[in-house]
Amino acid sequence: MGERLTIALDAMGGDNAPDIVIDGANLALTRFPQVDFLLFGPEPKLSAMLEKLPKLRDRARIVHTDAVVAGDAKPSIALRNGRQSSMRLAINAVQEGHAAGVVSAGNTGALMAMAKLVLRTLPGIDRPAICSFFPTLRGESVMLDLGANIDCDADNLFQFAVMGEVFSRTVLGLARPTVGLLNVGAEDQKGHESIRVAGQRLRDAGLPIAFHGFIEGNDIAAGTVDVIVTDGFTGNVALKTAEGTVKLFSQSLRSAFQSSPLASIGYFFARPALHKLRRRLDPRRYNGAVFLGLNGIAVKSHGGADALGFANAIGVAVDMALHGFLDKVREEFQHLHPSFGSTPAVVAP
Amino acid sequence: MGERLTIALDAMGGDNAPDIVIDGANLALTRFPQVDFLLFGPEPKLSAMLEKLPKLRDRARIVHTDAVVAGDAKPSIALRNGRQSSMRLAINAVQEGHAAGVVSAGNTGALMAMAKLVLRTLPGIDRPAICSFFPTLRGESVMLDLGANIDCDADNLFQFAVMGEVFSRTVLGLARPTVGLLNVGAEDQKGHESIRVAGQRLRDAGLPIAFHGFIEGNDIAAGTVDVIVTDGFTGNVALKTAEGTVKLFSQSLRSAFQSSPLASIGYFFARPALHKLRRRLDPRRYNGAVFLGLNGIAVKSHGGADALGFANAIGVAVDMALHGFLDKVREEFQHLHPSFGSTPAVVAP
Repeated sequence: MGERLTIALDAMGGDNAPDIVIDGANLALTRFPQVDFLLFGPEPKLSAMLEKLPKLRDRARIVHTDAVVAGDAKPSIALRNGRQSSMRLAINAVQEGHAAGVVSAGNTGALMAMAKLVLRTLPGIDRPAICSFFPTLRGESVMLDLGANIDCDADNLFQFAVMGEVFSRTVLGLARPTVGLLNVGAEDQKGHESIRVAGQRLRDAGLPIAFHGFIEGNDIAAGTVDVIVTDGFTGNVALKTAEGTVKLFSQSLRSAFQSSPLASIGYFFARPALHKLRRRLDPRRYNGAVFLGLNGIAVKSHGGADALGFANAIGVAVDMALHGFLDKVREEFQHLHPSFGSTPAVVAP
Repeated sequence: MGERLTIALDAMGGDNAPDIVIDGANLALTRFPQVDFLLFGPEPKLSAMLEKLPKLRDRARIVHTDAVVAGDAKPSIALRNGRQSSMRLAINAVQEGHAAGVVSAGNTGALMAMAKLVLRTLPGIDRPAICSFFPTLRGESVMLDLGANIDCDADNLFQFAVMGEVFSRTVLGLARPTVGLLNVGAEDQKGHESIRVAGQRLRDAGLPIAFHGFIEGNDIAAGTVDVIVTDGFTGNVALKTAEGTVKLFSQSLRSAFQSSPLASIGYFFARPALHKLRRRLDPRRYNGAVFLGLNGIAVKSHGGADALGFANAIGVAVDMALHGFLDKVREEFQHLHPSFGSTPAVVAP
């Protein structure tokens, strides 16, 4: 069965917690039989749920707490008042070495703030970034940052590029992932100064990174590069714009099939193929945003995820642990350090 | 037949000029019989083309020039060397009062630079913005800026909001268009300072604007507001991300229909409905990006537009002229001026 590992779960995070957390863990077990779980939340409730899932019950230990971080709590408030919360205790378990990673579907800002405080950033990294998967015409790509850092300087973008490349190489298994900086044109003089400086450094640094150069918004879904690097504001807008566009297209397609009896017949015949399409673009498949740049594995599930989506988020944490992502990023930044540490901060936004 | 008006066309701008320009003008004539055209480009070539289109020939006058702005020319070079170009002469025609507006499918940066230089910005407006239409779940919305201004301060965003609202009200005929600022969350403390300050001013200014507040990327396609205001970097990325996503979805849908004989049968029956869907999301329908904030009407067609797309871009210029857009924006900023002019520039990026 190979290496065993333990994942800490914030059982009370997300719109449909603890149900999707428990059912998601149960689903994940079939894919990753080597995983044990630490479940943080109210013991009576959780143990009653485990009664019906004997396989999971044997592989999970409940750590009791009644405190929960509210979905709309400000990060600063959550930090101060949430020291005994299910979210915080699950993160602590990673820091204390009891778990290889933590997964939560709770409040993103609070999770990031707590993870930063407890796990700290890796040497050479100023700020962690949120990184996630995208379906593309060529397969799938990763993009970071998706919202942790609203304002980013050239150093941040440079560090995101290195982290994203290592993530794509080690966790997704790409031999030589290509990296692009999101911009409004391919030419050198385009975009914010921070992007231009980061681009220059990625070209000049002599890194073993396949830096593609600048890409544009349409390159995201085209899969032009494997790793898309951007600031948290732009990444968040792009991610949500893409989600909204898929929704518009899906709903328009549904209306089209319902618009006439002939179209309904068409739907009947095309249904299996359309289901395959829906599966391919299913956001649940791409659930699990990784906080890259911390001394520990922390994965954020979408707050509205169902059990299948939550199981995929667990899968991301497990993959990162199994592939030794943290050690590889540490190595990469150690190599970089001589040239990297001496670079003055060029841009202050 | 009502008011007559003249539109100046850069006959040599775009990937497929002058063909799509001439055919587009011919198409536009059926929709707008009151329009005359000034065609800027090489006389021999254009007059040979008009020979085959007698209806258009009677309504078009050719102004000869052999000079053309290259599609990849830097704006500064185009400004200096393009004084006799078809693009520049077409813009001059608006400034000189020979045409009510100009339409070009040429180099965007050059067109914006020349239009700014020749037409100048309206009183009260620091920088013009690129504004265009989007299909949404509710119908259609407009978004600005789509790429003219990479860095925007609170003043710029505030002015874009006012211009976009007037555009939506007068040209699209909405009685009380809603306006939203694109951000990464709805809460007051979210996003760049420029956005927060612009939001505060739109709330406090006592304007007759239905200011919705902050919106997120997914609100664009949802049609949550009629007017989406953002800086040129974010707007450009969002626009292209949406375009790329539609392409991913369309191509995946096509593959799905070709994936099995049953699916092909389904496509056969659903075809009319799917064509309707394609028409609704057809980018040609939304062709024609407006340069808002200038003393004159300037519309940019997509460089790869076909005749139908170019005709729609002409339609946007005609609609703006017929609805007296410029006068209405001037009025609006005159009303604003007392409070508006005294506001100190709060944010310097």
